[in-house]
Amino acid sequence: MSVIYDRVALIGLGLIAGSMAHAMREAGLAREITGYARSAATRETAREIGLCDMVCDSAAEAVAGADLVVLAVPVGVMGTVAAEIAPHLAAGATVTDVGSVKQAVIAAVQPHIPAGVHFVPGHPLAGTEHSGPRSGFASLFRNRWWLLTPLPDSDAGAVDRLGRLITAMGAKMDRMEPAHHDLVLAVTSHAPHLIAYTMVGVADHLSRVADEEVIQYSAAGFRDFTRIAASDPTMWRDVFLHNKEATLDILGRFTEELFMLQRAIRMGDGPQLYDYFTRTRAIRRGIIEAGQDTEAPDFGRSPDAKGQDI
Amino acid sequence: MSVIYDRVALIGLGLIAGSMAHAMREAGLAREITGYARSAATRETAREIGLCDMVCDSAAEAVAGADLVVLAVPVGVMGTVAAEIAPHLAAGATVTDVGSVKQAVIAAVQPHIPAGVHFVPGHPLAGTEHSGPRSGFASLFRNRWWLLTPLPDSDAGAVDRLGRLITAMGAKMDRMEPAHHDLVLAVTSHAPHLIAYTMVGVADHLSRVADEEVIQYSAAGFRDFTRIAASDPTMWRDVFLHNKEATLDILGRFTEELFMLQRAIRMGDGPQLYDYFTRTRAIRRGIIEAGQDTEAPDFGRSPDAKGQDI
Repeated sequence: MSVIYDRVALIGLGLIAGSMAHAMREAGLAREITGYARSAATRETAREIGLCDMVCDSAAEAVAGADLVVLAVPVGVMGTVAAEIAPHLAAGATVTDVGSVKQAVIAAVQPHIPAGVHFVPGHPLAGTEHSGPRSGFASLFRNRWWLLTPLPDSDAGAVDRLGRLITAMGAKMDRMEPAHHDLVLAVTSHAPHLIAYTMVGVADHLSRVADEEVIQYSAAGFRDFTRIAASDPTMWRDVFLHNKEATLDILGRFTEELFMLQRAIRMGDGPQLYDYFTRTRAIRRGIIEAGQDTEAPDFGRSPDAKGQDI
Repeated sequence: MSVIYDRVALIGLGLIAGSMAHAMREAGLAREITGYARSAATRETAREIGLCDMVCDSAAEAVAGADLVVLAVPVGVMGTVAAEIAPHLAAGATVTDVGSVKQAVIAAVQPHIPAGVHFVPGHPLAGTEHSGPRSGFASLFRNRWWLLTPLPDSDAGAVDRLGRLITAMGAKMDRMEPAHHDLVLAVTSHAPHLIAYTMVGVADHLSRVADEEVIQYSAAGFRDFTRIAASDPTMWRDVFLHNKEATLDILGRFTEELFMLQRAIRMGDGPQLYDYFTRTRAIRRGIIEAGQDTEAPDFGRSPDAKGQDI
């Protein structure tokens, strides 16, 4: 694999930036990787584990001379970070981000991008419930989608080059309109996360009554919800606040549908429940066929089954 | 490991019964295992893969001379099956079940149990989204809870003996009141399953609009929901219809809580969201510490990471 960027600056050193660093190094895609994180403790950890070639004490220093700058911070601070680095960006550089929301990030970042610098918004559909500089691993993006939402005036060459980096890290690249991205993600990711957070919260109230039995007897369904609900609170707070319209739209549809099923339970309507559950099973099959998950059963996983190369 | 039962009859040959057959054989816990399933195709598959020592063409034949009879059929047909086998049960035999609901099963089965036969209701908190005679594996119960809900007049010797079988298959045994069991499971399993089914159904409606993009770009949260929502439709229909009160109670609490979070999103109340998500993260930690799940990240799993010994 050949070098695609001379110097890549990672702003924010969490799960996504860390995994990018590992993936770029493994495949030799960047000649040099610099990094910056707002927290001194994070910078120290990153230095300790050698996550980047150079961990800088300011974002300005990290982006100086970089031909690719990756904004890998919570969606709510993208604008602030963009304003901070703007005066220090090299002419001809590409700036991308990895935020889970695109319209709000574009609105916050785009005004700060100087002429001659290319802004190509993006979003890797990959993650785990872990966060921080130690949580990254090179294979995180493998066979996962990485969506780019270029702007109408995005430089075609800059988009293509970023696309080559993405596919070289093992991901599948696709393009999407920012508004459409935010709707699709609201249904596949944002609403499910809020629902999982909610269900775990309900259990929490109950567990106080029932002496932590709820935790002890955590069965299949709930265990998977807790995994989702253990994701980074800052990141998710920002996602909901910045993809408000689409998330609330999907949650409204969800509530309608839930009420219909609650009513079927109350009325004892077995055929309606059976038909509904049969349809949802077919969707799962579609996902497996699309290669986004495996057939391996997951609920019965034993404590020693890691199945992941961190 | 020594033989605990001379002859174990498995009524229903799906994931749980199949896994019990594998686990009992691996540890030599039963001298002979008989089996019966209502579907001729299931019986044929069970014979083909040698799941039991003998697959019978009637439940009556399967239970004849058995000192343990396991009812491993959907909750809605437990009563019918109990009525069918009752005249053929051996004196001194133990009958148990593996249903996810306990009060309704006890009400349906208990009246059919003849004098001199011991009924000890049970529920293994283990499963995968797969079903059928080929889906079982010996390690399904390893380190999982298996709850027994003995009746006030249950024979202590019979309960102890069944408990020894359960722990010998690798599970952790505990006892619970039937009503309390149904409440705890409503929050840890039944409500989460209904919610996952609902969210996948919402996506289904949307995917028809969006040309299956929803499936293609299935991200972390949604993928885990589809896994849950791919579970056996008959089993789950019966669970909801037979644990109606507790499930509707929990769903009511869930809706209240969801509305509160929706409102926080609409009002832009970041601190409330952040605090809520921080609390749910702590619950996840409790589950890991209780040994019911691993720390291994799961969202980024690659298609070749099986992590399960089927």
